[in-house]
Amino acid sequence: MTSKLPVPRPGDPVAGNGILSRRLFLERALAAGAIGVGMREAIAEPLAVQPWMKTPGAGFEGYGQPSRFEKKVVRFIPPPPNPATQGVGPARTPLHLLDGIITPSGLHFERSHSGIPDIDPDQHRLVIHGLVRQPLVFTLDALHRYPMESRIAFIECAGNSAPLNAPKPLPLGMAAIHGVFSCAEWTGVRLSTLLDEAGVDPSARWVIAEGADSASMSRSIPLAKAMDDVLVCLYQNGERVRPSNGYPVRLLVPGFEGNLNVKWLRRLKVTAAPAMSKDETSKYTILLKKDEKAWQFVFPMEVKSVITRPAPGLKMRGPGIYEISGLAWSGNGSIRQVEVSADGGKSWAPAALQNPILPMAPVRFRAPWNWEGGPAILQSRATDDKGNVQPTRAAFAAERGLRGIYHHNAIASWRIDEKGEASNVYA
Amino acid sequence: MTSKLPVPRPGDPVAGNGILSRRLFLERALAAGAIGVGMREAIAEPLAVQPWMKTPGAGFEGYGQPSRFEKKVVRFIPPPPNPATQGVGPARTPLHLLDGIITPSGLHFERSHSGIPDIDPDQHRLVIHGLVRQPLVFTLDALHRYPMESRIAFIECAGNSAPLNAPKPLPLGMAAIHGVFSCAEWTGVRLSTLLDEAGVDPSARWVIAEGADSASMSRSIPLAKAMDDVLVCLYQNGERVRPSNGYPVRLLVPGFEGNLNVKWLRRLKVTAAPAMSKDETSKYTILLKKDEKAWQFVFPMEVKSVITRPAPGLKMRGPGIYEISGLAWSGNGSIRQVEVSADGGKSWAPAALQNPILPMAPVRFRAPWNWEGGPAILQSRATDDKGNVQPTRAAFAAERGLRGIYHHNAIASWRIDEKGEASNVYA
Repeated sequence: MTSKLPVPRPGDPVAGNGILSRRLFLERALAAGAIGVGMREAIAEPLAVQPWMKTPGAGFEGYGQPSRFEKKVVRFIPPPPNPATQGVGPARTPLHLLDGIITPSGLHFERSHSGIPDIDPDQHRLVIHGLVRQPLVFTLDALHRYPMESRIAFIECAGNSAPLNAPKPLPLGMAAIHGVFSCAEWTGVRLSTLLDEAGVDPSARWVIAEGADSASMSRSIPLAKAMDDVLVCLYQNGERVRPSNGYPVRLLVPGFEGNLNVKWLRRLKVTAAPAMSKDETSKYTILLKKDEKAWQFVFPMEVKSVITRPAPGLKMRGPGIYEISGLAWSGNGSIRQVEVSADGGKSWAPAALQNPILPMAPVRFRAPWNWEGGPAILQSRATDDKGNVQPTRAAFAAERGLRGIYHHNAIASWRIDEKGEASNVYA
Repeated sequence: MTSKLPVPRPGDPVAGNGILSRRLFLERALAAGAIGVGMREAIAEPLAVQPWMKTPGAGFEGYGQPSRFEKKVVRFIPPPPNPATQGVGPARTPLHLLDGIITPSGLHFERSHSGIPDIDPDQHRLVIHGLVRQPLVFTLDALHRYPMESRIAFIECAGNSAPLNAPKPLPLGMAAIHGVFSCAEWTGVRLSTLLDEAGVDPSARWVIAEGADSASMSRSIPLAKAMDDVLVCLYQNGERVRPSNGYPVRLLVPGFEGNLNVKWLRRLKVTAAPAMSKDETSKYTILLKKDEKAWQFVFPMEVKSVITRPAPGLKMRGPGIYEISGLAWSGNGSIRQVEVSADGGKSWAPAALQNPILPMAPVRFRAPWNWEGGPAILQSRATDDKGNVQPTRAAFAAERGLRGIYHHNAIASWRIDEKGEASNVYA
């Protein structure tokens, strides 16, 4: 006698409240008319000719821009804490209005400490000094002589998702909660190549990176990381790095919290000890739950995922099949699995992961969902290739407490109401 | 007695005229000071403070732009054949000023037949009709209900590199010769999903795609391809497709010649036979060498590579180690190998290939070169995973002749002169 487990057909639910098998979309198993939002019409030829087909269109532009009908797709810029300052704080990526993994450079988040400097690349210099055999000064032309490397990588501000530390859920949207996270294809020179050229002293343990903004934003990077995969970047998504992201040269420190990826890079000082700069002592440390202690030098951003659609501001129009889509990433490696839930974590099913799956890069995940029109709590849970699993908010709070504002990576929840509107909740 | 082949050290030449092993950069085998273009200075602290560090920088922008110092990085727009027309012809990507594989959307090439229409997405409709059970009309909102897919893919105009068919080498640069080639991360709905929803008749063999520009640009796509990997794209590099690339919706036909990737898509008509439209009869056919015959419906772009640096307009500043960098791709699959030569094809060495290596996507290749200051002819030669090898110009001409202007994929040559300037030559 053999016993067979029933194999769910692609259209069958595989988790509570309407989550369907990821095979539904992959195997073309949707029945004709299953989504059924295309209007059924008898098409009479010739088709109606729209106004823009009646005259020749516009001419070419040297550098193109988005459609004038997409003016709402902009970074979310919260009011500055002090109205007299500008360019202090974040400009956040509207992840709910995007798809894929690349963030267009015009929408890549930024977090600046004293505005965006207007740097003349011919005047800019990068200095390497400290515990090296030969201090060196590089022009941009000189940096272009070195071998380059490209990689698709995320940058996440240490304070991303910090609003989820609030005692009660705040009525905020995608960008306000999760929008200091973006991804680009970065190209530059390996920092190890430049450090090798200067000759690092055996006593060295750290590299202090300093920006040419008026805050002289600076952070200490462990030498082992600096010699591993750090890039001195000249290009972002193919073109030269944008001013808001560090023009003419910035660091990419793959997987590490955003502020180590120092923008407007002007100095790398090789040292035996960290700088203990403002941004690694009073800021960017993690206040723990107990004992009034804090963690310092917490570098990799932990495994995490967010659902970008549905999300607040994207109204669902009636019951039926929808795609749940989002991003997952880990500063400790690559993503192995993402699961989704429509019942607040009671049941889970695996989402489909989009290729390429790269270390320290986001992965786009997708799962079909049959929304029956009732309330639902949507969640996603990522697992990385080191076995790290995104914690529940309760587990995160039990370990770290919620007094800090950095490195929040707990499972986030969108509530869908009967009108098809999404909101930030705790579940 | 054992015989050992000498293993070249990473700094040793592996092909003529200074090509070094790709291991040089990968294995951190450069000696200190080997490139030696960093200025050797005794660094006195504090470092000089530049003007842009003395006052707070600029505030945030909702949608960012490149630095004002990068105004030269624009598409190359040749004068139109008829000065009374605008937006007819190509706007070409300046590949020599970019790095990585992604083309920023503002610089993605375009080839338009009657300018760029200004389409209101709320008024736009996509019609599917012809040999289907149920004709359907889709709004943009309706298309957003369907499952999506993202992929990084190149689009290459069938006429890319056509200037290399000229009897004598023309004094043109990178964009003018090879610049109707770009790459983006595209996201959209599988065309097969929409066709399944409409229900394709068994007698169908083709899908005619028509754009909503005033040229009604249209091409016939074999049904087998339409049911395979074609995407109805809504997003380009994360954000909505740009007007010059088909806003609000375009086709991506992976690997196939550019004009099949119909922009401003308004109609998909399922048929038994191709449309025999202007752009598949009088245009976009390949005139052969002999017998006054032509090839019609030649779809995949053949295996190819180009060196983007050094290139015309990028002057080399004195002898020493440089990186040869470029792009390779194949419309028939993924790239398996790229070789480079500095002696006009007499000797070759493999270049390093940058991850990710994806089908129908460009691969960035890199190879170290020790330029001794004399003349050199730089070439690259790509091989794809089907075993197709990029032909020499002579072999290409022997098979097809040079009377056509489409699908030129022969090995291209940059001559480097003693001043370090590059120019287009035949070799």
